[in-house]
Amino acid sequence: MRQLKLSRVFTLMESGPVVLVTTHDGKKDNIMTISWTMVLDFTPVFAITTGEWNHSFAAIRKNKECVIAIPTVDMLDKVVGIGTCSGADTEKFSKFKLTPVPGKVVRSPLIKECLANIECTVVDIVKKHNIVVLEAVAAYIDPVRKEKRTVHAVGDGTFIVDGRRIDRRNMMAAKIPYGA
Amino acid sequence: MRQLKLSRVFTLMESGPVVLVTTHDGKKDNIMTISWTMVLDFTPVFAITTGEWNHSFAAIRKNKECVIAIPTVDMLDKVVGIGTCSGADTEKFSKFKLTPVPGKVVRSPLIKECLANIECTVVDIVKKHNIVVLEAVAAYIDPVRKEKRTVHAVGDGTFIVDGRRIDRRNMMAAKIPYGA
Repeated sequence: MRQLKLSRVFTLMESGPVVLVTTHDGKKDNIMTISWTMVLDFTPVFAITTGEWNHSFAAIRKNKECVIAIPTVDMLDKVVGIGTCSGADTEKFSKFKLTPVPGKVVRSPLIKECLANIECTVVDIVKKHNIVVLEAVAAYIDPVRKEKRTVHAVGDGTFIVDGRRIDRRNMMAAKIPYGA
Repeated sequence: MRQLKLSRVFTLMESGPVVLVTTHDGKKDNIMTISWTMVLDFTPVFAITTGEWNHSFAAIRKNKECVIAIPTVDMLDKVVGIGTCSGADTEKFSKFKLTPVPGKVVRSPLIKECLANIECTVVDIVKKHNIVVLEAVAAYIDPVRKEKRTVHAVGDGTFIVDGRRIDRRNMMAAKIPYGA
């Protein structure tokens, strides 16, 4: 995995892919599937929606950190599987044959098989709305991976795969924080 | 436009499309382009990231309402154009040849040319993080429109068009709030 400049990391999340979020509660690793995310700032800061209903939430609240791992379309059945069982009774890394890799800053593991991994610390928890605010502190991308298409959950049990990419960098130049 | 059940409306937003947000400040209509959104609840409740830097924010804060309109790929140049000028000095509906249509609940207009429109009221503004929390109060979809593919901003000036759809409704059945 190649380290990625923090100024570019928001571009991994802005399109709204389904992501995996890993945690470590002091004893073991866990993974959850999250579709409800958004960018809050270019620095980058992200918001995710989670709460007591996710087993991983206790580890996030306690240790104030997690990793956002970005899977691709070839991993969809693992992503759905992870999202439909609980870390309360399942060792998800072994069940879904994923490889935890130590990060540099946080104890939550990176997922080797993912396209990208973002180490995050918790900036704030907006309890009223179940929003966890995360700041990225390090990020990595797999430079040799061929499959780069992410998936977007619709919420009805279907998923949209990334299609073609349209370039509007000239029109957008003034709006791109790190230059087009 | 056909009215849509509120229980299904989160499925218009969950995949993370770029959206247009309309407002009415008491004198005139405005539109902004927003990519930083997420679902907060199925009911549905949404979060969008906005603040003083958007001319539309003053109207949202004052009138506690807006419309989220969902454009499709054939509208991309309008979407980018709307996102790169300001309502402070531009009449965006006329400049981009879009048709405002009155909603049933809020004063902010629907956009006739969009695939879907969601009338929203402001539930809360989390000023610390520039998050506006919105509840949908009515929603509509254009049932005859052929182009249904939305676009997802990457943040680097490129946009990903919806590709093929993969069905995992059987695996997801227990997680779909209104039944698969």
